[in-house]
Amino acid sequence: MNIGIIGAGNMGAGLGRLWAKAGHQVVFSYSRDEEKLHKLATSAGVTAKAGTLQDAAAQDIILLAVWLPALEEVLQGVGSLDGKIVITCVSGLQPDFTGQTIGLATDLKTSVAETIQQLIPNAKVVEAFNSTFAEIIASESRQFGSDFPSIFYCGNDIEAKQIVANLIEDCGYEPVDAGNLLVARTLETLATAWVQFAVSSHLFPNLGLKALRR
Amino acid sequence: MNIGIIGAGNMGAGLGRLWAKAGHQVVFSYSRDEEKLHKLATSAGVTAKAGTLQDAAAQDIILLAVWLPALEEVLQGVGSLDGKIVITCVSGLQPDFTGQTIGLATDLKTSVAETIQQLIPNAKVVEAFNSTFAEIIASESRQFGSDFPSIFYCGNDIEAKQIVANLIEDCGYEPVDAGNLLVARTLETLATAWVQFAVSSHLFPNLGLKALRR
Repeated sequence: MNIGIIGAGNMGAGLGRLWAKAGHQVVFSYSRDEEKLHKLATSAGVTAKAGTLQDAAAQDIILLAVWLPALEEVLQGVGSLDGKIVITCVSGLQPDFTGQTIGLATDLKTSVAETIQQLIPNAKVVEAFNSTFAEIIASESRQFGSDFPSIFYCGNDIEAKQIVANLIEDCGYEPVDAGNLLVARTLETLATAWVQFAVSSHLFPNLGLKALRR
Repeated sequence: MNIGIIGAGNMGAGLGRLWAKAGHQVVFSYSRDEEKLHKLATSAGVTAKAGTLQDAAAQDIILLAVWLPALEEVLQGVGSLDGKIVITCVSGLQPDFTGQTIGLATDLKTSVAETIQQLIPNAKVVEAFNSTFAEIIASESRQFGSDFPSIFYCGNDIEAKQIVANLIEDCGYEPVDAGNLLVARTLETLATAWVQFAVSSHLFPNLGLKALRR
């Protein structure tokens, strides 16, 4: 697949690396540090390169991996995303994530993912990757003994969700279909609570959430 | 062990049954329906019986499994719990739990468990069992394929926590020490978010949360 990564923080860099390693064409973009972006692309392998925000947005699949406050600027500058699969891992988590002091950014009446879908109504928005940690993504493997952490994903387009499920598997996680984009309300809340709990319990970061089903 | 169960709802009844089955002496109490309480005790086996709130409170280990609004009445009527191990699975969840409409009961500045500890300062309060569902507790087994769901527990007394860890194992779950009682703030929030998410994603109730560690 052709994947554009918007945001070169830990999440964007880490997922882009894993996808490039899996053989996908990856365009990294949107860093305040151009040199860092080029180094990232070089280290990610031959199928990766650095590009502009517009280069990233020209790919078939876009990963939005920016902080919440940057979201509007990005979506305004990016050009049309009509028909694209847009994966968001943008959380409601505050930038200074300590376990005790942050509140939840959503009140279960909307979600970051739904807000994104409203801003780009003709894109196929899928939420994913918000209940894992960048430290796990950046590590050698997603394996915990004989287990693999689950990644919940939700969205309204079935085909887009299947493609995202495959991309989740490419990263070494177990994809779990959580439903339509409305579910992002509780998924983002869960993810925020999970990070807060991981930090306050001192189980962070070598902790994976696995959803057991039967 | 001698265990008093306060609250004969799905959580109290289910956990009491499992502990009685594991050979512990269990006293069920605090139901509006006396007959239901006796039927529950009879069906739970020879090591179980029905009793008053005070009978339950006279045991070495007490499980508080009541709705949040009943908590103060219970703790006022129960007599001294000094030195007892008090397990709380009382959640901040509202009685009408749908996935979309309830908010979180805590603001991460306190927790139900810490409030209980303040009300009974000489008891050894341990929070546990709030990220699993009564439906799983009531089912034939806690097993999901080759996996068992995790139960996080937290508290300030190391010895009490070890005893609770054993009681968690007796129920067929994997105990995970999450830290001191302060962690209840995020643990209760996580549990509430987990239930909300399970409902809104339609993965409820055959869903277990397993914490992977490495």
